[in-house]
Parts: sequence; structure tokens; C-alpha cells
Amino acid sequence: MDASRNPTASADWLDAVRWDADGLVPAIAQEAGSGDVLMMAWMNREALAQTAARGQAVYWSRSRQRLWHKGEASGHVQQVHEIRLDCDADVVLLKVTQLGHDPGIACHTGRHSCFFERLQPAEQGGWRWAVTDPVLKDPSTIYT
Amino acid sequence: MDASRNPTASADWLDAVRWDADGLVPAIAQEAGSGDVLMMAWMNREALAQTAARGQAVYWSRSRQRLWHKGEASGHVQQVHEIRLDCDADVVLLKVTQLGHDPGIACHTGRHSCFFERLQPAEQGGWRWAVTDPVLKDPSTIYT
Repeated sequence: MDASRNPTASADWLDAVRWDADGLVPAIAQEAGSGDVLMMAWMNREALAQTAARGQAVYWSRSRQRLWHKGEASGHVQQVHEIRLDCDADVVLLKVTQLGHDPGIACHTGRHSCFFERLQPAEQGGWRWAVTDPVLKDPSTIYT
Repeated sequence: MDASRNPTASADWLDAVRWDADGLVPAIAQEAGSGDVLMMAWMNREALAQTAARGQAVYWSRSRQRLWHKGEASGHVQQVHEIRLDCDADVVLLKVTQLGHDPGIACHTGRHSCFFERLQPAEQGGWRWAVTDPVLKDPSTIYT
């Protein structure tokens, strides 16, 4: 994206988004190179405007109730190559490169992707969630 | 997935999901072969249980307030190869193959993916959403 552009020059594109009752939309981050889905977080209007302007992912943290520039604490910044909107205008898709001291780590657990649990048949019948992806970096050393 | 398994034999895996105040979680459908993100919809407990049991995507339609077996009207069924859960246990990721009379069409507009609008620089400055992906089949001929 182009950080030199003023995202508020025309706000029509932000008005086109169908924000939910809390003023949020889900935003999916997909790794541009691999196609891996890294995470899903939430954006409000300001987060989406800043994401376009900075060319880096900015989300709205529902737990902390504030803007969250992804990587501000971990260094695991997401460079944004593309922003897409779905047919109902209520979900955003980002194509990103996961940058930082430890490239390729999107998850706060130190894993590549947040989707590291897979549903598998359980021995006693039914199903269980199984962790399938390795920790690439000890999370206690990420947030220092 | 294995339709012969009884998804209620052990419901622990369903209890592990952090359902929102409406009893829902976002579910992202990613095409297994291409890695393309096709759509995002919502699931309640029953939708996720049925998805695992049937091996086909079943969502909860918020607009119709009922279970929605994807493809029930269009024939555009999603075969589910894998179900993943994220680190906060509040987002589901499906790896699917988009089946049906018109393989590869996930969107009700007749397009491959629901994310067919891309943010682009506008001539007058700022940004605009631009449709980038073609209609593969006239939607009026899908829902007959």
C-alpha cells in the first residue's frame, strides 16, 4: 500500500464497509507468499484507514479496547500488499508478509499461524483438537 | 472428515470453542488446492458438529436465522478436508474443495471467491474498492 496517500481524502471506501453493531469487521490475514491463513482479528474504521495508509496491519483489540498496530510489542509487523472486501462488505481480507525479528511468526504463541489446532478423530470416538504446528520461538522471549 | 463418527460421542471439542454472546464463531473457508480464501461465514455449535459429521460445510445463516448447508440451493457444496481452531479458540478455519455443478464457485455472485473487491488508489486521491474477479456463472442461473 502507499503510505503517502491520505486515507481520509475520500472516505467513501470506508462508508462502503458494513460495520457491525460494535463498529467492527473481521479481518483475515493471509500470507502472500504461502497462502497460509495466519490469523483473524477485528478492525474498526480507524484501524482499516490506518492499515491502508501505513501499509501495515492495524487492528482493533477487543480485549484492550484500543488500536493495535500488529507487532508493536513483538516486532512481528505485517506488511500489507493487498486489502480485499467480501461480497457482503462485512469481512476484510489482507494479503501480508509477516516481518520482524522472527519473520513468519504471526501467533503470540510463537507459531507461524494462529490456526495450529486441527480436529482429529479421538481414540474413544468423536473428535479432539490436536496441536499440529511447532513453536518456532519461545513466546517468553518475544515480548521482552 | 468421517461421516460415520458420531459428533456427540464426546462434546469436549465443542466445549473448547469460545462461542460469542450469540453462540457463534466466524468460520473461514479456504480452498485446499489453491489456498484461496473463498468466504467467511458463521457457525453455531450445531453447525460445527454437523460440518464435522457430514464432511461438508454447514454454517449458521444470521440473516435467515437457521442452519445453512452450503450448496443446499446452489449445489455449490463444500467438501471439508480439515477443520482448524485458532489460538483464542474463537475462529474456525476450514480447508475445503468447492464442489457442485460448477466447481470452484463459492460466491453467490457466481464468482470463485467472495473477496472479489480490492482496494486501489482512486484517481482523485484516497482509495476505492475495485472489482477484480470475473463472474464465472450468471447467478440467475445458479438458483433455479
